[in-house]
Amino acid sequence: MSYFSELINKRESTREYQNTPVEDIKLERCLEAARLAPSASNSQPWTFIVVNEPQLKDQVAKATFSKAVSFNKFTLEAPIMIAIVTEKSKITAQMGNFLKNQQYNLIDIGIATEHFCLQATEEGLGTCILGWFDEKKIKSLLSVPNNKRINIVISLGYPVDTPVREKIRKPMNQILRYNSYK
Amino acid sequence: MSYFSELINKRESTREYQNTPVEDIKLERCLEAARLAPSASNSQPWTFIVVNEPQLKDQVAKATFSKAVSFNKFTLEAPIMIAIVTEKSKITAQMGNFLKNQQYNLIDIGIATEHFCLQATEEGLGTCILGWFDEKKIKSLLSVPNNKRINIVISLGYPVDTPVREKIRKPMNQILRYNSYK
Repeated sequence: MSYFSELINKRESTREYQNTPVEDIKLERCLEAARLAPSASNSQPWTFIVVNEPQLKDQVAKATFSKAVSFNKFTLEAPIMIAIVTEKSKITAQMGNFLKNQQYNLIDIGIATEHFCLQATEEGLGTCILGWFDEKKIKSLLSVPNNKRINIVISLGYPVDTPVREKIRKPMNQILRYNSYK
Repeated sequence: MSYFSELINKRESTREYQNTPVEDIKLERCLEAARLAPSASNSQPWTFIVVNEPQLKDQVAKATFSKAVSFNKFTLEAPIMIAIVTEKSKITAQMGNFLKNQQYNLIDIGIATEHFCLQATEEGLGTCILGWFDEKKIKSLLSVPNNKRINIVISLGYPVDTPVREKIRKPMNQILRYNSYK
């Protein structure tokens, strides 16, 4: 298995964190990996807000779950949360959005998010990519202007040591075609 | 520099391809990397259409540029194009789309695309992620139903040997905040 294959097999959604702080240098390498991500027209339509002030972090964590929908409650254990603000693409990419009815900046956010998470995996850290949260609440906590979006929040920390889970994925023949969709 | 840092530094948009076929085993490893990508509710909202039949490949390539907008003309040289059909997310993720006003499947497509491209880099292959193309034309060429979307097309092949370009990116202080956007 190649190094990259091993890395993506090792990356998983970490929902149990140790009570151990993350070294600044490791966090910085994750952010650097995200910074280097490719994007449509090299727009880099992202701002990363690292939330590591403990009380604020808890408030952000609490905005990712409720009594009714509690599957993100594990975020309370993570020492760091990162909110990614989706910024506007460059005007050339915006033209593509308009003329080609595409929305590149969400795809770009996906790429940068995964750069972050794969670097974290290499650093021995665990992440979970969250898409379910009270966006309005988190924007308010982090002073993000109303007209901006937060599409992704990432939890980060040292994972509780558990064996890597086998990935459950569709078999290749369900997701692959040659030369025709049909 | 860590292995993953080197890999993301090595990955770049390849716009000059050698006239050399891509080995099946290498292509399969790229597809496998994409298959293993994480996605909202593990929806895996993607179908990969590998276009390697030469005439059809040329037709798909021609649908990515025009006389007026010719920056994707290099795709004619690439031996393989991959069109990614964006499929619906699982119902749980769709609930998130609805209740949280998010669109997870585009983020998921970004993640899977980058898995593909980073694996290709490790294989010594070059890729370019394209968002500018005649979607209707490509859907017609590949018999993709009208109600589906193609948001990304990737070109794949051996790159003409050129030195790795330095990445032009915003400096970290432009894209990073701690605990507050302001």
